[in-house]
Amino acid sequence: MPRIIPHDTIARIGTALFEAAGAPADYAKTIVDHLIESSLMGHDSHGVLRIPEYLDDVVRGRIVPAAAVHIERQSPTTAIVDGGGTFGAVVGRRAIDEAIRTAREHRAACVITRRCHHVGRLGAFVERAARNGLIALATCNSPVYGHCVLPWGGREGRLATNPIAYGVPTGGDPLVADFSTSVAPEGKIRFHRNQGKPLPAGWLLDAEGRPTTDASALYATPPGGILPLGGAAGHKGYALSLLVEILGAALAGHASNNPTVIGNGVCFIVIDPASFGPLEQFEQHVSETVAYIKSSPPAVGFDEVLVPGELEFRSMRHRTQEGVPVDDVTWRAIDAHALRLGVASLDSWGAL
Amino acid sequence: MPRIIPHDTIARIGTALFEAAGAPADYAKTIVDHLIESSLMGHDSHGVLRIPEYLDDVVRGRIVPAAAVHIERQSPTTAIVDGGGTFGAVVGRRAIDEAIRTAREHRAACVITRRCHHVGRLGAFVERAARNGLIALATCNSPVYGHCVLPWGGREGRLATNPIAYGVPTGGDPLVADFSTSVAPEGKIRFHRNQGKPLPAGWLLDAEGRPTTDASALYATPPGGILPLGGAAGHKGYALSLLVEILGAALAGHASNNPTVIGNGVCFIVIDPASFGPLEQFEQHVSETVAYIKSSPPAVGFDEVLVPGELEFRSMRHRTQEGVPVDDVTWRAIDAHALRLGVASLDSWGAL
Repeated sequence: MPRIIPHDTIARIGTALFEAAGAPADYAKTIVDHLIESSLMGHDSHGVLRIPEYLDDVVRGRIVPAAAVHIERQSPTTAIVDGGGTFGAVVGRRAIDEAIRTAREHRAACVITRRCHHVGRLGAFVERAARNGLIALATCNSPVYGHCVLPWGGREGRLATNPIAYGVPTGGDPLVADFSTSVAPEGKIRFHRNQGKPLPAGWLLDAEGRPTTDASALYATPPGGILPLGGAAGHKGYALSLLVEILGAALAGHASNNPTVIGNGVCFIVIDPASFGPLEQFEQHVSETVAYIKSSPPAVGFDEVLVPGELEFRSMRHRTQEGVPVDDVTWRAIDAHALRLGVASLDSWGAL
Repeated sequence: MPRIIPHDTIARIGTALFEAAGAPADYAKTIVDHLIESSLMGHDSHGVLRIPEYLDDVVRGRIVPAAAVHIERQSPTTAIVDGGGTFGAVVGRRAIDEAIRTAREHRAACVITRRCHHVGRLGAFVERAARNGLIALATCNSPVYGHCVLPWGGREGRLATNPIAYGVPTGGDPLVADFSTSVAPEGKIRFHRNQGKPLPAGWLLDAEGRPTTDASALYATPPGGILPLGGAAGHKGYALSLLVEILGAALAGHASNNPTVIGNGVCFIVIDPASFGPLEQFEQHVSETVAYIKSSPPAVGFDEVLVPGELEFRSMRHRTQEGVPVDDVTWRAIDAHALRLGVASLDSWGAL
């Protein structure tokens, strides 16, 4: 059973750890806020468990904890944010803030990243833009070492799980969608393998390009690959994934098979709806549309129609009150870093 | 068996018909070029068979053949193109040309349409931008009368097939993707019903929200609905469809259930890759990425890995030489319009 910890307790521990690992105070706060928000929203895979992972990556030299973030090739509507290899949450935050500022001034913006370590949950960034009254699209690719997703019709991985996200202001909670363009994320395949359970059909091909429900085929030598989103219409998920790939790689100045590239290639496109009419009118039309869509009675097996982000905001309200689950592996890994870095060990934190 | 007609013969007939129906000469050429290109690329559902359909819509007053196209609420990077209810190919062409001009000058552009009749094949517009060295995204919604697609978890249609398209320059043939965000287009369901064939599993729910392979369930009273793209991950296709809906409706100034709205709500977002580095370098990185992806050996049941647009450009080369198939129903319908409009009947065209 995971421990349930108040989110502000984790924030204090996490911030102290990242600062001790060499991150400036504002970087540490940005990273920890990002990870805790992911856990609060129920996305534990992008939440607190990344605290020890990022600290490990600092130790291994994969993250440059205090690298300065620079803006390059700025035009009135576009920019490249070069993260210098620092924490992705910091680079992503800088990039979306640049896109927000730009879209407010010029109505449309496109900002991309370079040398950005694991950017985290894309939804956080598009939500930030939506809370500023803007429509935001986001895409995120990964370099060759993450290419576990098959192109449609192929049997060797050439793409990562390449998520897409968007945020739309409504006046209340924004619409926030965030999903991989593969049929499932890699972590779910690993979960099935670790549990010794068969996969659902349509997730995986083995190395010979045959459908399989054996999760271990993804980790064999040579490996199989995850299918793109869409089932029999997987050419559509593949097309989306390829777009994410091009916005993350070629637009940032390199081919997708360049082995020297590290980190996520993120692209934010932000549009100001106030350019087309009053923001309040746009938000009202979005809200009316949401009500219309939710008015569909449920299909068999469902209780209600939800809109993107709705479950996450429910989780946020619940977990802000009740605390965030932290599994034992993560807990012990955080404790080990606390000991290593000379930060008070977890047991000494009164709130626990 | 369909007749195989040289594309320039169809162009001459079609242009004469649209002019006789009241379209200005430049409108007639734009419409016919658009429809013939769709047929050449193998997308017959958006090709020559639309000639009599659009002419019917003029007769019924659903298309205003000579309506002027106006640009509204223009900012340096955004615009609304109001088509006044004229042919969608004309409105879409004007909108993408406005987006191309804007993106060249300001690096990023977002242009949407209002009062735009059936816009046709989205891929044509993003290809036009890509051939101008630009990255283009396009979305297209439809009003309530087209809402045959279910929201995820629902059993009443609330969305249209809401396609997404993109174009990316490569230096050679661009990448051109264009696909609905539903698991299948409505026309394919109708085809199965007309043939009395069962649907593949996972396409349709009946009016009670139960999975069915009976295509007629979509046309029953009350109707069933088409599932969003994604199979078990249909919440992803639903999220995409909702984005298309918001860019087509709320951004254009109305809610999605507004019954007075007619035509497609199109949104073009165009980005200039030259803002991030030399265009030639971008095109080279895209080409290297394409080669890398196509280097995946094929899966079982496939001959090769293709990239979006590749099949269409092959079809284009073949059909430009060999001619375009025109089915008998379409042929007779065109002939009837030729007689009605006093345009020489088809049999008098020497090339036939």
